[in-house]
Amino acid sequence: MQPTACLIIIGNEILSGRTQDKNLAWLATELNEIGVSLAHARVIPDVEEIIVHTVNECRKQYTYLFTTGGIGPTHDDITAASIAKAFGVPLVRDPEAERRLRNHYTPEQINEARMKMADVPEGASLIDNPVSTAPGFQIENVFVMAGVPGIMQAMLDGLKGRLKGGAKMLSKTLHCNLPEGTYAAPLTELQSRYPNVDIGSYPHFQMGKVSTSLVFRSTDQKAMNEAAKEAYAMLLTLGAKVREEVF
Amino acid sequence: MQPTACLIIIGNEILSGRTQDKNLAWLATELNEIGVSLAHARVIPDVEEIIVHTVNECRKQYTYLFTTGGIGPTHDDITAASIAKAFGVPLVRDPEAERRLRNHYTPEQINEARMKMADVPEGASLIDNPVSTAPGFQIENVFVMAGVPGIMQAMLDGLKGRLKGGAKMLSKTLHCNLPEGTYAAPLTELQSRYPNVDIGSYPHFQMGKVSTSLVFRSTDQKAMNEAAKEAYAMLLTLGAKVREEVF
Repeated sequence: MQPTACLIIIGNEILSGRTQDKNLAWLATELNEIGVSLAHARVIPDVEEIIVHTVNECRKQYTYLFTTGGIGPTHDDITAASIAKAFGVPLVRDPEAERRLRNHYTPEQINEARMKMADVPEGASLIDNPVSTAPGFQIENVFVMAGVPGIMQAMLDGLKGRLKGGAKMLSKTLHCNLPEGTYAAPLTELQSRYPNVDIGSYPHFQMGKVSTSLVFRSTDQKAMNEAAKEAYAMLLTLGAKVREEVF
Repeated sequence: MQPTACLIIIGNEILSGRTQDKNLAWLATELNEIGVSLAHARVIPDVEEIIVHTVNECRKQYTYLFTTGGIGPTHDDITAASIAKAFGVPLVRDPEAERRLRNHYTPEQINEARMKMADVPEGASLIDNPVSTAPGFQIENVFVMAGVPGIMQAMLDGLKGRLKGGAKMLSKTLHCNLPEGTYAAPLTELQSRYPNVDIGSYPHFQMGKVSTSLVFRSTDQKAMNEAAKEAYAMLLTLGAKVREEVF
């Protein structure tokens, strides 16, 4: 079994449609590389009781819980305080985080709002922020990261060593020019013979033309390759043009 | 109070990072236009028990529940059957949906996999699909749509008349060249005086330069304008260059 992960995207700007989230796909892909499977994600507003409830519900159900958003200096950045509440511990000023922030800012720039970014739940360890200094933090299996994609990506890069992955999820993709309905029945039959390969079928509609991608995902390379090979042959029999995606 | 909505994005391809979801931001923006607020979203895999559980949990908590994904003809399209299970009703072949599909496909194309797309939970009403015919459906406050963005958008367009909105959420954005920490304290004070305006502050980091967007959202236009005007003046006092976003 692969360890599982859950992502909680905290931010009114995502729910309002103003900002397009980019962190989910990035996190999923990076976790995949180290054999951790993103199993669930939620998008929630900047509301303390919702953050507390969601974190406490999700951290018990998955190996790792990640959050993005809400760790800046303004009034709407309430993630650290909410996570402290979720764990029932006080929010404390981390001396190392404070040192980094005092080092980063000029004396005139230092103010209480900025120093707030050194506050973490008691017992948390820092997650480095090589982009803009203000750190994220880890408490138990919960990893709290920035929402700005460039910062989130740098934080994730630095914390990956703390995660313990399982077998890596491999994938293979076939593209073909048949609509799904043409191969649905033989693909169902094929899927039933490869229970440890997750076969997905995804249609695309462009300029009135239909094409599809068949995605084979498994930690078992041999089974994955065999399933894809069989599908390839099946699609050819149905008259398809098939192209294997090469990375 | 505005009616609320929840979106459940059903699809392994989103959780694997392979496909970037585009439906959340679209739905949020469209709902906003008619005074419905997207309050929550989840991304879940193509697993029946998870779909059943999530739909039953979320449909009770929000005015409207939308789902995207999993209504095609292949083995991984299990949304309709799962929703039927969530409501404890049988999955039945809808005569009108069947008629549309038989009209759309040539006799050689008609097969059981494609006809499966006419199956809906008993008591559901259809949601039109002007792009590729196979309909979505509504059962009580749950709206089941396709995952392909072009089809989802067309379905949403057609079903909007069934939704009852409240006051429209308005928004105003100021862009400025100050980092957040510089104005955090006066902005907190300002927010405290405008409890019915939701003020968000979002930093951008580009080429080593920081800029920020201040977003004012409210159903009360007067309060929103006043809050934004005050913030504008406050930012100028702090030496900022400020630009108001014009649509």
